[in-house]
Parts: sequence; C-alpha cells; structure tokens
Amino acid sequence: MSRITARRKITRITVGAQPLAGEDLLAVEEPLEIRVNGRRLAVTMRTPGNDIDLAAGFLVSEGVITQGDDFNSARYCAGAVDGVNTYNVLDVTLGAGVAPPAPSLERSLITNSSCGLCGKESIDAVRTKSVFEIADDAVQVTAESLTTFPEKLRAGQNVFEKTGGIHAAGLFDAATGELLVLREDVGRHNAVDKVIGWAVKENRLPLTGTVLMVSSRASFELTQKALMAGIPVLAAVSAPSSLAAEFAAEVGMTLVGFLRGNSMVVYAGGNRIIDAQRDEQAA
Amino acid sequence: MSRITARRKITRITVGAQPLAGEDLLAVEEPLEIRVNGRRLAVTMRTPGNDIDLAAGFLVSEGVITQGDDFNSARYCAGAVDGVNTYNVLDVTLGAGVAPPAPSLERSLITNSSCGLCGKESIDAVRTKSVFEIADDAVQVTAESLTTFPEKLRAGQNVFEKTGGIHAAGLFDAATGELLVLREDVGRHNAVDKVIGWAVKENRLPLTGTVLMVSSRASFELTQKALMAGIPVLAAVSAPSSLAAEFAAEVGMTLVGFLRGNSMVVYAGGNRIIDAQRDEQAA
Repeated sequence: MSRITARRKITRITVGAQPLAGEDLLAVEEPLEIRVNGRRLAVTMRTPGNDIDLAAGFLVSEGVITQGDDFNSARYCAGAVDGVNTYNVLDVTLGAGVAPPAPSLERSLITNSSCGLCGKESIDAVRTKSVFEIADDAVQVTAESLTTFPEKLRAGQNVFEKTGGIHAAGLFDAATGELLVLREDVGRHNAVDKVIGWAVKENRLPLTGTVLMVSSRASFELTQKALMAGIPVLAAVSAPSSLAAEFAAEVGMTLVGFLRGNSMVVYAGGNRIIDAQRDEQAA
Repeated sequence: MSRITARRKITRITVGAQPLAGEDLLAVEEPLEIRVNGRRLAVTMRTPGNDIDLAAGFLVSEGVITQGDDFNSARYCAGAVDGVNTYNVLDVTLGAGVAPPAPSLERSLITNSSCGLCGKESIDAVRTKSVFEIADDAVQVTAESLTTFPEKLRAGQNVFEKTGGIHAAGLFDAATGELLVLREDVGRHNAVDKVIGWAVKENRLPLTGTVLMVSSRASFELTQKALMAGIPVLAAVSAPSSLAAEFAAEVGMTLVGFLRGNSMVVYAGGNRIIDAQRDEQAA
C-alpha cells in the first residue's frame, strides 16, 4: 500500500479555533510511461498499482488489442532514470502477429496535461522551465477570507447550477477576496487554462498576490499550471494528490485542500495563511 | 448558452415508483484542436466558450508564452470539416519573435484519452474502429440491482476511505449484480483502463452482459472506452457530458447518471433497464 497512499504533515484550520498540526493520507499520483515493443506510446498520471492492467486496458481503448493472447507480457524498465528502476516505465510486448500502434497514434492522442514525466528529476525540469518564481511571493490571505471562496465560486457557476456536471476555476485577489475571473469546463485542467489564458491576455502574469480556487481535487497538473502562471496559492474543494502536495512544497506554493464550510487542510506553504502562521509561532 | 449546455430527453427512475420521462440539461463536451501558426499542438475535450482563453492558458502552461504580446491573435479555422466551420479548430498566431513550441512538445504531451477528434464525423470513426457491437447485447438489469452498485463500489474502495481523493471503476455482472473487479486511480480514465485491462487479460472481451460503474461523472472518453471493451451499460454517480449521452445513444449503449440512493437518470438505452422498459410500454 505504500505506493498507493502517502503520508504528509498537514495543518487543519478551522476559523476561530487553534490550528491543529497533524498527518493526512494522500492518494499517490505518479507518471506511468507505457511503451510498446520498446517504443513510447503514452504517459499518464496514475496511482501506482495494477499497472499492467492499466497498460492492457489502455491498449484495448486504443484498439490495439482485443484478447488475452494479444498481450504477451509487460515488464518495468530497469534503469529508466539514472540507472534506478522507478517502476514508472512499463514496456509491453504484444502477442505474435499483433500489429503495434500506428506511428501516427502517439501524435494524435488527446492531451490533458503538460509534459512527459517519468521520474522524480522531471519535476525539477518543470520547475526550471517556469520563468516565474513564486517562492518569494510574500502575499498572505486570512483563513476567514479563504472560507468565503467556495460560495463565491458556486454563486458564479452558471452551468453547474443547470447541469451538475462541470468544473469551475476562479482567480481571487488574496488581499481583498475579490473574484477576478471564473471559468467553467467539463475538464478541470481546461477551466484552469481558461483562467490563466484570460490573465495572460490581460498582461497580468505573473499572478502575484492571487489565489486560484478549483471546484475539484488538486492534481499535480494543476499545481504545475499555477506555477507557470506565477500563482502563489492553490485552493481546492477536495483532496490533493501526493504529487500535487510534494510539488507545491518544492516550489514554495501554498496548497489548501478540503476547503469547505469554515475549515480547510493546509498541505504546503502555511506561512501565507495567517491562521497557519499563528500556529507555527505557537508551536 | 446553446453551445455550453444541451437539452436531452431522459427518464428518471426511482425504485418502486413509475418512471418519469423528462428533459435534462447537460454540460456540452466537444473537442478543441489547438493549432499554433497552422500546426496542430493538442486536442482537448472541452466545454465550448472562452476558447481563446483556453488556448492562451494552454500555451502558458506549456511555457510557450508569458505575456499578452506573445499572443497575437486566434481564429477558428473555417472549413475544418467538410467545408463547415465547427468552431472546434482554433489557430493561434504568436507574437513577433515568440518561438513556436518545440516539435518534440506535441509528442511528449501527457494523454488522457484515446483519439484526436475534431468534429462530428470522427465519432463515426471511433465507432467503426471497435470490433465489438454492443447494440445487439440484449442484457437487462433491474433498477433495484443498479441502486446497490454505488454502495458495493464504495465498500470496495480501500484508498478512497483513507484519502477521499481517488476515483473508482467497478465491473458488475448485470444478471447477478456481482462485483467482478474494482480498480482505483487518481484518474477516472485510468481506473476504467485498469478494469478493462484486467478483463482482456482474463480473455473476457467483449464484456457482454456487464455494467461498468464509475464513481465520477461520465465523459465521452469513458463511453468510448466502454465501447472498445464491448460493455453495454455504463453507470455513473454524477452527470454525463452531452457527448457521452450522444455517443451512447449512437452506439446503442445504456447510459445511467446520478445513480444515488434509490434513483437514477437514464440518458440512453433505457430498454436494458427493466423499470425504464415498463415506462416505455406504458407510454
């Protein structure tokens, strides 16, 4: 189970109460590179476990295999990263006579994310790719203000009210709590891209002093998008993944999850939340 | 708003009551192909609206642009499909001196789906790609049995209990209601791929007489994966997208959403649900 869930130190904040230091279990998110006969087919951000099932099912979805014999074997590539087996690269050997995926397939795959990651070091590659530094953004936001964001987000969600089936992302001014822009989409990554796209067109990057709030969980991908736009605080209604929390901590981003009612869980960068800071001083 | 929400005829089923025919508003899901200087960069399944923001934000996330001047203009490609402007292909012209994305970028994008779709006709392409026909699967499932699936799914979700941050997909025998396999993942598409991969390795494809239940919303991608595995019934805890419902109806798949408590909404293929069939006979 150790690769399926990860334990992290967190701070639980309830408005009007003392913050509580504690631990939380997060669902692990890591990249899996699927290779077929040695050639890369796709990279997906997944929870480790049943990786061979995942690769086999992906090949069914792609129309490459339809029966058990089509899937000969699969093995993790040893030495994929600096000679260490990360268990994040899986090479599938197809059955005799099964045609490998067309060379054009890889290029026509629908994307939902931003890079081809296969190991720890690629996180550093993403970080250095960003021209903005968020670690130095000393903006602070009160816990009280944060707890008003979900309702402001919901109030602006025209499409969710009607369909119950859409994500929202909103950009807030950390100092005033004002909702600057809200976008909706069936894909949470698209909702975030729409917010960031609005901002770049308005020439507002880096988004110093802002909070990005999402109606969903917080994946690695969303923390990465926030970094690329220079957003120092990411808040989510639901849980973050392990990699989202790790990445946020590494780049100096504040990551808040389970922002509901009058409470929240802080996974990284608690110094920007005034209640959390009080807790650190008291500790 | 007409391209953001779509109206569909549905049947609301509550166990022990007469099914109710009605209408439901769905969030629209359509592919957007993002081109840069005429060259395809990515295809994403999105809700139409603010497409230029979406493209601009995607380019920020990819590290291609960082300020307003980097994004010169964007226009929908007229005649992208059979001479008709689908408003699903957007060509971005970068500002002077901005380097276009590296040729390697397109190939390293993380994928979450199964094909490069740009218009209506590509749905037909997906349908013909599947070797399995689900329209002829005459399996039936009772509404009572379906209402037991969410609890069975939840009971088997080890990781969700601990983290609150993970999706599940379960495959059920339609006749007995037995849970055949359950898989969890931070990505709902991965959870489904893991289920289908288990099945193909067990040589169970096509998955005639089964129900695939997901803990999430139902996207087009999930209906597509179900079709590729020959699964005749897809049930979701939350809402489907417009394209999921359209695609299910086109390929003869049963699609159930909002499966909670003792009720559900049927978006396509109600003939396989015994209560829904009774309603159709009564109508």
